[in-house]
Amino acid sequence: MDISGDRGTNKDTRGRIMDASGGLFRRNGYTGTGLKQIATAAGAPFGSIYHFFPGGKEQLGAEVIRWSGEMYLRLFETAMDAAPDVVTGVHNFFAGAAETLRETDYADACPIAAVALEVASTNEPLRQATAEVFTGWIAAGTEHLVTSGLSRETGRTLMISMLAGLEGAFVLSRALRSTEPVEVAGATAVAAVREALRELR
Amino acid sequence: MDISGDRGTNKDTRGRIMDASGGLFRRNGYTGTGLKQIATAAGAPFGSIYHFFPGGKEQLGAEVIRWSGEMYLRLFETAMDAAPDVVTGVHNFFAGAAETLRETDYADACPIAAVALEVASTNEPLRQATAEVFTGWIAAGTEHLVTSGLSRETGRTLMISMLAGLEGAFVLSRALRSTEPVEVAGATAVAAVREALRELR
Repeated sequence: MDISGDRGTNKDTRGRIMDASGGLFRRNGYTGTGLKQIATAAGAPFGSIYHFFPGGKEQLGAEVIRWSGEMYLRLFETAMDAAPDVVTGVHNFFAGAAETLRETDYADACPIAAVALEVASTNEPLRQATAEVFTGWIAAGTEHLVTSGLSRETGRTLMISMLAGLEGAFVLSRALRSTEPVEVAGATAVAAVREALRELR
Repeated sequence: MDISGDRGTNKDTRGRIMDASGGLFRRNGYTGTGLKQIATAAGAPFGSIYHFFPGGKEQLGAEVIRWSGEMYLRLFETAMDAAPDVVTGVHNFFAGAAETLRETDYADACPIAAVALEVASTNEPLRQATAEVFTGWIAAGTEHLVTSGLSRETGRTLMISMLAGLEGAFVLSRALRSTEPVEVAGATAVAAVREALRELR
């Protein structure tokens, strides 16, 4: 699953710094990632980080969280739009997530969950950035479910339940080095959507 | 929810170091917690950490993960044993988790999830410790469900689904500073157990 986004082939330095930071935060967390490491991974001079992000690591962190959130949302929208129906879309999204875990040796899961847990009680501006991303995902997912005929209330509850299942499954799958939790969470999500749609009839 | 365990009123230095580390890891993560911070929080001399944990932070981390895992499992067992039936037990456990989140200003959720995401791709011994804890929780939860009459396969799938829902809801609830995700995940878990038991009849 490529969440690097479409920035053309000649990525500018700023874009490379964002990309590198996103990858490092996702795998090593926010605290565990140093600016020097980011500069090296981005192939950018150390000083360029402060040039593009005068607020330093915190500004970079907040921008990466919001940008990763948008990219991941785009992935979700693409999976949903490409599927013939919402049940298939949800199935495909979880299946894609499991595949990405396997392909990346259980490194790439949610782009912001590791950071979200780290900063929840320690860094209010970054916590707010993660909250905005989750709020946006819940709103967008709810819209997809409402389009399928579900009430806004049912759609929202279902979306929160599916997102919680996905995020928790990522924690379990990365720790256990097994895709079973993501597969189970996917089957649970598919069954829940199917059941909610069945109750409409 | 007190997961400090019962070590009597005169806690020894080792126990105080474990307690303090558990609290700090849970809130600030593993990388974000320094040994000096642990010594201060434990009211213990800095040198005593290496006295009790010659392997330093990594040994301390692994022991705290396993010990926190056991304490949290005991909490789960207590909630399940105190309830008249498995549905009520699951409901009470999620309700207790939501209450703890509110009471601790959204700091105390899963004792090991933050560390689990941090170490999954960066520290193999600590990843293994988190995997052991999750494996133990899944096995214990499966047993409870099997006792209620569910097949081992259904019990295991249901337990993984509920645990994923809880862990992901913790991520969302801490980020959003709202108990809604834990409440939604709890309602989903209760409905799933109820449905699985209904299908038995």
